[in-house]
Amino acid sequence: MYLGSQLFTDSEYEQRLVRVRELMDRQGLSAIIVTDPANIFYLIGYNAWSFYTPQMLFVPIDGDMVFFAREMDAHGAHRTTWLPDEQIVGYPESYVHRPHLHPFDWVAWALRQRFLIAPASKGSVGLEMDSHFFSPKAYRALYNAIPEWKLVDNFELVNWVRSVKSDAEIQLMRQAGMVCSEAMRAAIDTIDVGVRQCDAAAAISQAQITGTDEFGGDYPAIVPMMPTGAAADTPHLTWHQGTFAEEAVVIELTGAHKRYHCPLARTVSLGKPSKDLDYVANATAEGLNNVLDVIRPGVATRELASTWNWTLAKYGLEKPSRLGYSIGIGYPPDWGERTISIRTEDESVLETNMTFHIVCGMWMDDYGFELSESVRVSPTGVETFTSFPRELIRK
Amino acid sequence: MYLGSQLFTDSEYEQRLVRVRELMDRQGLSAIIVTDPANIFYLIGYNAWSFYTPQMLFVPIDGDMVFFAREMDAHGAHRTTWLPDEQIVGYPESYVHRPHLHPFDWVAWALRQRFLIAPASKGSVGLEMDSHFFSPKAYRALYNAIPEWKLVDNFELVNWVRSVKSDAEIQLMRQAGMVCSEAMRAAIDTIDVGVRQCDAAAAISQAQITGTDEFGGDYPAIVPMMPTGAAADTPHLTWHQGTFAEEAVVIELTGAHKRYHCPLARTVSLGKPSKDLDYVANATAEGLNNVLDVIRPGVATRELASTWNWTLAKYGLEKPSRLGYSIGIGYPPDWGERTISIRTEDESVLETNMTFHIVCGMWMDDYGFELSESVRVSPTGVETFTSFPRELIRK
Repeated sequence: MYLGSQLFTDSEYEQRLVRVRELMDRQGLSAIIVTDPANIFYLIGYNAWSFYTPQMLFVPIDGDMVFFAREMDAHGAHRTTWLPDEQIVGYPESYVHRPHLHPFDWVAWALRQRFLIAPASKGSVGLEMDSHFFSPKAYRALYNAIPEWKLVDNFELVNWVRSVKSDAEIQLMRQAGMVCSEAMRAAIDTIDVGVRQCDAAAAISQAQITGTDEFGGDYPAIVPMMPTGAAADTPHLTWHQGTFAEEAVVIELTGAHKRYHCPLARTVSLGKPSKDLDYVANATAEGLNNVLDVIRPGVATRELASTWNWTLAKYGLEKPSRLGYSIGIGYPPDWGERTISIRTEDESVLETNMTFHIVCGMWMDDYGFELSESVRVSPTGVETFTSFPRELIRK
Repeated sequence: MYLGSQLFTDSEYEQRLVRVRELMDRQGLSAIIVTDPANIFYLIGYNAWSFYTPQMLFVPIDGDMVFFAREMDAHGAHRTTWLPDEQIVGYPESYVHRPHLHPFDWVAWALRQRFLIAPASKGSVGLEMDSHFFSPKAYRALYNAIPEWKLVDNFELVNWVRSVKSDAEIQLMRQAGMVCSEAMRAAIDTIDVGVRQCDAAAAISQAQITGTDEFGGDYPAIVPMMPTGAAADTPHLTWHQGTFAEEAVVIELTGAHKRYHCPLARTVSLGKPSKDLDYVANATAEGLNNVLDVIRPGVATRELASTWNWTLAKYGLEKPSRLGYSIGIGYPPDWGERTISIRTEDESVLETNMTFHIVCGMWMDDYGFELSESVRVSPTGVETFTSFPRELIRK
């Protein structure tokens, strides 16, 4: 029995499955094996911190989906998914963390017992070959146990379906944006000379999870990152317990609401910024503004990258890493959807209700500057999910 | 140049590598590919939230280790690892999230250019086949690019070396224990009838990350979990924004300090507990106490499981899932080491400075109870890292 309050309508979940199956058909897939927790959440609503042991959603081209998880997690899956109980199957605890067994050995047999192997053998079976929680051992378990399946990469099939949001999803992302604003305000208020980095991170985390009175915060797919001073030449350092000095602090954080994410980055200068930092900050802000001006349905993502590159070139600067990526549902370790990247090599074209984190991270030698916006492609241009000034923040 | 303050002495890092290579030799491995961020941290100290894109530490049976990461992360790796710059290599940004490329295509070529392929071809090359951040696509990239390597599972080789801690590691776990106590106190103080779940989670998170004046908190490998009321029949639900009623709340959280973890679980009853809950709570507390009494070097882990099972049987109860697991360094999504599990099938024998989370989680129908301790096997018995009463907490 489904006990939660369903996040989306039945027809929205049906539509998602229809779009997934259309793509499956075009890719010649009789079934896909979904292991990315964000994709599982998208298709059936299941949501728990259970992805550290193997789990999978079996999606045949027609017929019922079946969700497999560890017994103790399958037991409670009905609290977050609308999938009927008979389509939720728990594998025995004795398969967890054993060197000579894998849960998917058991799952393969369970699929066979349900006579689901043969129908899926007509075409290929598409796996998420680059998903974080699908290991080579899991892959080989399927390969060995189901020799009649032709296993192929489905190339982020469900992730691609997720790239265009429904209006209901956009609404959740706006709410995540409100949570994000609270978290960024907490960051800017707290970070100061003499404050321990961990205390600033604690204040941010508190704000992220409390959220607003109306919209409680969910856990972020990535913890607050704050590369500081000279260490801001690299983006993914987390905090330590040392204190801030008169230096620049890059803050990259997210708001999350019901697993939807709205990330945001700003840079705070404690004390007078260096000339170099000021110069890069101005160039970056102009670049970001120019990129936002270009966004509208029908524009190629590579045009965004070109606009950015041209603006930066004017200042004698360049940024080798991508300018942004598609966002939406997020689970650790990443809030990106791993589909569209904003860079000159990308071949995507913007559509209404695509959503991106446009992130201008300048990782210079011994300092850094970052400025970003989470945006929706609107029918006429762009909508930003938050509204902080696009500039270096001075304290 | 190494800029951080090194967490362990040179000789401790050397000893770790010696122990890893002894095991490699016995397993017939000429090299291992380390992808688990906890194992990388253990061997070279590298620490950043960069594990959502592929990274690997190449460890040959002799000669220098080489660390590969995304260019922007390699650029700043010297801030947390003592590995010399020439042993840190960045792969180009153009390999990130591309359907037809994988970073390990590039890494395989980089290994070849350094003439590191041939020496590693003498024996087998051991992979972490069940590591969270090593995907089938990464595996196949290596398989295709380096046909002369005989790729085998190294069966959590480095994780097994981690299972016995040094005194310096035990010290960090005690400090994580202090952070844990603050977080559990925040949980017990905050959780109450009418309080939003997200506000309780925010208070816990704040306490986890602030830590103590002396020992700042690090991010937890798993967010606070609080299965509540009827939903406490399953362990891995996270919070929502609804409020607590008169019901039992299971709290499972951790303290983390410099990536070392000390998890802890307690159950808070808001209002009078049901007779069933009270009964299970008493049985569980007696079971846990009996297990702790048995712990000392030389005892088989399965004896712990038997002691637990016998105590529970006396009460007409049983618990199908494992009773605990080895702990230490943790990165999302798991604070367990994925080696020793405390259950009757396990074949390990306790040694001094092994550390475990002994977790008595009773997932009944429509309610649950959990009680745990993080412990060290001491030369004469057991040391617990925290000291909360082992009982149902009534508020």
